[in-house]
Amino acid sequence: MSLLIVGSVAIDSVETPLGKADNVIGGAATYCALAASFFVPVRMVAAIGDDFPPEVLDDLKGRGIDLSGVERRKGTTLRWTGRYHEDMNVRDTLHLDLGVFADFQPTLPEAYRDSAYVFLANIDPRLQASVLEQLRAPGVVGCDTMNHWIVESRPELERLLAKVDMLVINDEEARLLSGERNVVRAARRVLQMGPKTLLVKRGEYGVIQFAGDSIFAVPAFPLEEVFDPTGAGDCFAGGFMGQLARSGDTSPAGLRRAIVYGSVLASFVVEDFSHRRLQSLTQEAIERRYRQFVSLTDIDGG
Amino acid sequence: MSLLIVGSVAIDSVETPLGKADNVIGGAATYCALAASFFVPVRMVAAIGDDFPPEVLDDLKGRGIDLSGVERRKGTTLRWTGRYHEDMNVRDTLHLDLGVFADFQPTLPEAYRDSAYVFLANIDPRLQASVLEQLRAPGVVGCDTMNHWIVESRPELERLLAKVDMLVINDEEARLLSGERNVVRAARRVLQMGPKTLLVKRGEYGVIQFAGDSIFAVPAFPLEEVFDPTGAGDCFAGGFMGQLARSGDTSPAGLRRAIVYGSVLASFVVEDFSHRRLQSLTQEAIERRYRQFVSLTDIDGG
Repeated sequence: MSLLIVGSVAIDSVETPLGKADNVIGGAATYCALAASFFVPVRMVAAIGDDFPPEVLDDLKGRGIDLSGVERRKGTTLRWTGRYHEDMNVRDTLHLDLGVFADFQPTLPEAYRDSAYVFLANIDPRLQASVLEQLRAPGVVGCDTMNHWIVESRPELERLLAKVDMLVINDEEARLLSGERNVVRAARRVLQMGPKTLLVKRGEYGVIQFAGDSIFAVPAFPLEEVFDPTGAGDCFAGGFMGQLARSGDTSPAGLRRAIVYGSVLASFVVEDFSHRRLQSLTQEAIERRYRQFVSLTDIDGG
Repeated sequence: MSLLIVGSVAIDSVETPLGKADNVIGGAATYCALAASFFVPVRMVAAIGDDFPPEVLDDLKGRGIDLSGVERRKGTTLRWTGRYHEDMNVRDTLHLDLGVFADFQPTLPEAYRDSAYVFLANIDPRLQASVLEQLRAPGVVGCDTMNHWIVESRPELERLLAKVDMLVINDEEARLLSGERNVVRAARRVLQMGPKTLLVKRGEYGVIQFAGDSIFAVPAFPLEEVFDPTGAGDCFAGGFMGQLARSGDTSPAGLRRAIVYGSVLASFVVEDFSHRRLQSLTQEAIERRYRQFVSLTDIDGG
């Protein structure tokens, strides 16, 4: 089963306490697609400018990512420049140029319209909704958003949330969306808006999942060195949705295993700048880290 | 097997966003002893003033806590007044009066000197060391400390750490003690100082344990309402050490189960002000929440 991903593709310049990388490939859809490509064929919907390096497109295609939904237009690709603080949970955006992404209108190629597994990465909820409308029979729909849309486009976002199965957001977004500081109360509110499952990303503390009355918490993988946190949340979503599409298992245990696969992918991408670590990543390394997650969390293990 | 606990007994006045409690029983040793008393008989070493309510002493005795090591002296009991912020990870000390605790010199009754399981709650590391010296054959020694001693008494603290088995501190203390921001690197440094096991308390995100090359992380229990975080870390230590003393099992799996029992006790005490919630707590409720921790963390569960 393939996974449809819609979202941003970007060219980033990033500085962290451990170094710097200029003009590297970024964007939520890119990270998400790369992570998911370890699980299933990916169909990508995005917009890029005519400045986008063609060799990167070849690389993505080589990883089983279908780019027929990626529109190449006159103009520049979205460009983001950011700097992380010593506490890498905090970052400043130094520069943002939306480029051709400013009037992105996702149009699905005919061959994409039968997609059953869909991830709507963080873009305007109106565009996320328009992707859903173009699908014949979406089966499992995951969705991300951000503070900007929660504040500026709440009615559109709430209409969208009524139609998604899984919402994947961070703790700050969960608080803002729900108006509740406590994560359990926030989750209850968000689940009333529509999603059957809420995944709250908590950075170095991992992920907590709420589904009905069931709660599952998994820590982040304890790493000695985080080089660049960019894309961690998107790789989490890509690994999570990719595993769901690969296994077809959306049972409670299937969801939990997919959350661990998402955490595995997130733990790898932060080990180097941009998506470099994913370039050399193997299935064997993914399975090895999955087993490390089991031993990290197993109460009767050790 | 009984557990020896040395530390502070206090009278607290606490304000949190959810309410206020004046002149309630506090102190690290008190919380720790109450939590441990659900597992084993406890031997307590502390100092109280002549203002300390005798009915509280009767209550502690009724819970199997031996108070023959608690010295009652002329003067006032340690008094602490604190206020928690909206973000309850942050608190201000509004008032602190050490009272008779200022020149506390722990002296162990003869009957205590054979104690094998010992927890040195947060006090001057010189006093913690003097307790160890009074013991004939300490078997399993746990220890807490705080920023003040890390900064002001580092040589004494380091001498002590060479003699303890398990250090139980929070993330800020781990960073200060090690000089490392990253928790994995911090843990490696701290383990070089002597303890075989380091437990880092991360508030609402739970606990992470480092022992040799093994890492175990357990989330905090997701509660809808935290009334008063005071004593959570001390109840964690009490439940953890209490379970170790009860089971005698310090194998890797035995340590992990003890960490979950510690987390269970911490999750209960914050449900009401001071130690009120422990007053009505039952063994059955403890076991039920232990099973909830299993289902909260079991990757193949749900």
